[in-house]
Amino acid sequence: MSKKNNKITIFALGGAGEIGKNMYVVQYGNDIVVVDSGLKFPEEDMLGIDIVIPDTTYLKENIDLVRGIILTHGHEDHIGGLPYVLRELNVPIYGTKLTLGLVENKLREANLLGSTKRVLIHADSEITLGSMTATFFKTNHSIPDSVGVCLDTPEGVIVHTGDFKFDHTPVNDQYADLHRMAEIGNKGVLALLSDSTNAERPGYTGSEKNVGAELERAFREANQRIVVATFASNIHRIQQVIDAAVNTNRYLTVIGRSMVNVVGIASELGYLRVPEGMLIEPDEVNKLAADRVVILSTGSQGEPMSALTRMARSTHRKIDILPGDTVIIAATPIPGNEKLVGRTVDELFRLGANVIYGPGSSSGVHVSGHGSQEELKLMLNLMRPKYFIPIHGEYRMLRQHGKLAESVGIEADNIFIVDNGDIVEIQNGSARKASKVPAGNVLIDGLGVGDVGNIVLRDRKLLSQDGILVIVVTLSKQEGKILSGPDIISRGFVYVRESEGLLDEANKIVSATLNKLMNDNVNEWASLKTHVKEALGRFLYEQTKRRPMILPIIMEV
Amino acid sequence: MSKKNNKITIFALGGAGEIGKNMYVVQYGNDIVVVDSGLKFPEEDMLGIDIVIPDTTYLKENIDLVRGIILTHGHEDHIGGLPYVLRELNVPIYGTKLTLGLVENKLREANLLGSTKRVLIHADSEITLGSMTATFFKTNHSIPDSVGVCLDTPEGVIVHTGDFKFDHTPVNDQYADLHRMAEIGNKGVLALLSDSTNAERPGYTGSEKNVGAELERAFREANQRIVVATFASNIHRIQQVIDAAVNTNRYLTVIGRSMVNVVGIASELGYLRVPEGMLIEPDEVNKLAADRVVILSTGSQGEPMSALTRMARSTHRKIDILPGDTVIIAATPIPGNEKLVGRTVDELFRLGANVIYGPGSSSGVHVSGHGSQEELKLMLNLMRPKYFIPIHGEYRMLRQHGKLAESVGIEADNIFIVDNGDIVEIQNGSARKASKVPAGNVLIDGLGVGDVGNIVLRDRKLLSQDGILVIVVTLSKQEGKILSGPDIISRGFVYVRESEGLLDEANKIVSATLNKLMNDNVNEWASLKTHVKEALGRFLYEQTKRRPMILPIIMEV
Repeated sequence: MSKKNNKITIFALGGAGEIGKNMYVVQYGNDIVVVDSGLKFPEEDMLGIDIVIPDTTYLKENIDLVRGIILTHGHEDHIGGLPYVLRELNVPIYGTKLTLGLVENKLREANLLGSTKRVLIHADSEITLGSMTATFFKTNHSIPDSVGVCLDTPEGVIVHTGDFKFDHTPVNDQYADLHRMAEIGNKGVLALLSDSTNAERPGYTGSEKNVGAELERAFREANQRIVVATFASNIHRIQQVIDAAVNTNRYLTVIGRSMVNVVGIASELGYLRVPEGMLIEPDEVNKLAADRVVILSTGSQGEPMSALTRMARSTHRKIDILPGDTVIIAATPIPGNEKLVGRTVDELFRLGANVIYGPGSSSGVHVSGHGSQEELKLMLNLMRPKYFIPIHGEYRMLRQHGKLAESVGIEADNIFIVDNGDIVEIQNGSARKASKVPAGNVLIDGLGVGDVGNIVLRDRKLLSQDGILVIVVTLSKQEGKILSGPDIISRGFVYVRESEGLLDEANKIVSATLNKLMNDNVNEWASLKTHVKEALGRFLYEQTKRRPMILPIIMEV
Repeated sequence: MSKKNNKITIFALGGAGEIGKNMYVVQYGNDIVVVDSGLKFPEEDMLGIDIVIPDTTYLKENIDLVRGIILTHGHEDHIGGLPYVLRELNVPIYGTKLTLGLVENKLREANLLGSTKRVLIHADSEITLGSMTATFFKTNHSIPDSVGVCLDTPEGVIVHTGDFKFDHTPVNDQYADLHRMAEIGNKGVLALLSDSTNAERPGYTGSEKNVGAELERAFREANQRIVVATFASNIHRIQQVIDAAVNTNRYLTVIGRSMVNVVGIASELGYLRVPEGMLIEPDEVNKLAADRVVILSTGSQGEPMSALTRMARSTHRKIDILPGDTVIIAATPIPGNEKLVGRTVDELFRLGANVIYGPGSSSGVHVSGHGSQEELKLMLNLMRPKYFIPIHGEYRMLRQHGKLAESVGIEADNIFIVDNGDIVEIQNGSARKASKVPAGNVLIDGLGVGDVGNIVLRDRKLLSQDGILVIVVTLSKQEGKILSGPDIISRGFVYVRESEGLLDEANKIVSATLNKLMNDNVNEWASLKTHVKEALGRFLYEQTKRRPMILPIIMEV
């Protein structure tokens, strides 16, 4: 039985119109293939939320059709959702060696390692997923072992680039597979899904090798200790820190939980070459001459609990920054983290360190892992797709990527700018935007998955702005009078000792309101509470221009 | 009586180690001169706070010595604190025409206009302030009528640059007074205080005129309506929008409260040249052909309530963005606002607008108002000060500015990197860091000035993360039992309907804890409350990994 003439549906459950929680779905007939399962860090209005994952309702409802999750690489925004998603969606996962190595660590912590079927892939693997076949092509990215996915369906080939740049002088000779990409393009691509992160950036992204040269130059100029902070997952960068340390005759120590973790996994799996004897324990740092030490650290984003932030605040248990030390922040602030990073730099300067940092790549010690406009055009020209769906980016980036596609000759009508959940349907070689599947944010707060919704967030927002006043009063409805209280407890509103007059006044207003209502024979609790809230809210706003949450607790004896 | 041999003390009450709330103090003997009185917008951990002003304790304690406040220009971070500071510190203020125009508006709203002595200065003014004499020099900045201050004391000359860049092709021929600066430098400067905002940026800042050319180019390419969002105070930019509108035969309408306000004041005072008949009301926009209209708007920072944000969300009362309209964001996001601006751009793209925006000056429609490294060096070389105090910048910027000063030959020992409150003392031509005056943040929340302190902020932070649980229970101590409750009220913790089991369990724990304590004859309220908080807190953390604020209300009958 030929499955020909079935339609292909393509949609994002995360990653379209946002940076983060990447999850893309291709369905052909009764077969669903998922690409990536990432997390996102909360927006600033998601108070108290730890992480955000995609809404996978559609996959759960069609679990019998899901053939597996292909992982393009080991970054959190591509694998970080797995510990939550796999709990309800026990399907095989496919990944390269390093990617699975990083995933296994997560699954172990979540008690999901035993129950999850993990399939190791490499660049030459060919995997049958129902009626579809997946093959892969190596890409350059800021983590080794990154791949793009070529999904062969009876209706045509769908290509998903994963995250990529074109680095012609990669570290550890991890070349992108240009020839395979050319071959795929030559055979014909029905639809391309491509990384839009840097679609707003003209030109080319620099080579990781340039960073190595710059690091070594900085190492040679330093005559005391060197601290390098970078993303723990950037194994190429870490390799270059190691190489520069070797070339300048320094020992290396690693601090920060995720850095220790990733360096361990990457060394074990052969992705890091660390000369024997050069790794030392943090405890040994103080025993060595200052010019023989490099400290590789987390905290390049100014994260409050990270090793670099602790060192900058002189609260790290083992390492102090001394005047004359060199601190290199080999990263660029992720949007939203600029102030945290700035504060860390300030604190390091205050300690007398020489700090090498800078916006974007201006310091020379960082390059992006994502291709800029010319590289995105190169991918488009290699693949020559009929249809194009920019992914992995905020809406404006998808739009800019769409314009780039037009500029290399893809018809505007064949470019689909989608939001999460928007279905692109291809049948008989012809694509159109169809309906939607459920898509959205599932918020994770502590152990709770999805139990914090809009009401809870709205309350947190209110509480964060002006605090709360709890009014406790005991009434005798029979006698129609107040027996005790009102007592007012304030948290986050005003400093009580300085505002006694205001709270006394508030007290009188509550009493007067209740007495008047009881005289008028208004006795319903709901009504009493509403009136107290209104009267007190009005008074406080007039007096302070603030609107604390007001919680009346009216007891009856 | 010669006052010679008195010492000069210089310190910042705001602006050293931060961008915002600028306020600098020079004291000679019994005379105090204040330069600027700005506000700062709250940091992200100052929940619910509206604005932040400097702690002026020192000035209040020495009010008899304060000769006045000199205002360098009309930006909020230089004049925005006046409505609060003047309430307790009724001293004369000195400013140029536009600066005073903007200040008067503020003072009127604060009912301080009548009581405040306002002295108009211009570039050639000479003002006696006790034993000191102030003269001024014109600078280029992103608002007209900006000046630097030259303070002649019996011990030597102190120069405060104000905010500046060197724009060799300024709009409206507002040239910086290079010759006067050269003259001041020639006569000898004891100490220079100079703007460090762009001390991290190599090269030169572009001329405002370049923006005009780029705006006009964009206007010529647009064939529907044009919306331009920029800072309301950037009168030069607004002039160029007007000029581009004139040159492309378009009418102009102005929306957004602060934009309407500033355009009004600036036109009235002659700082804006608006051809007659070109200004139209927002209501008239829909009556004109789309290619005859320019809309000048607030909201370049993505502020949630601003006109541009409302238009982007299709909630503006008068103006809708239509597909094909051009929106130009002629500003760069202030650090911390990147995400808000990004969201606005996304929403505008979704409406089908062509959006011209970009990080830094990459879009061509924005240049900074602050000089880059080469301009800072030019200022240093013009003034050739003996001592140098970089101001107006985060700590790292002050440090970079210090390095620039070293690079042009100022001795490292003569460069003072200060925090707010640090005193630099100069006596007999010799400077040293002395003690400190009180300095810090005064938080303004609604009408409250300084009534929100660390405890209130800590509570707001706690409340914002995991919400609050209020436990109400009535006890009979005599009988040693619970009479009613416990009742649990939750706000911002969990969505109650989905967590009934958890709250039931919590209820039992509170009951058990209280019963056990009463059996053990523990009857003190404080002790009962502490135990309930601990037991419940532990349980909730185990179950949810969250730590809501717990507020036990124990009543006795």
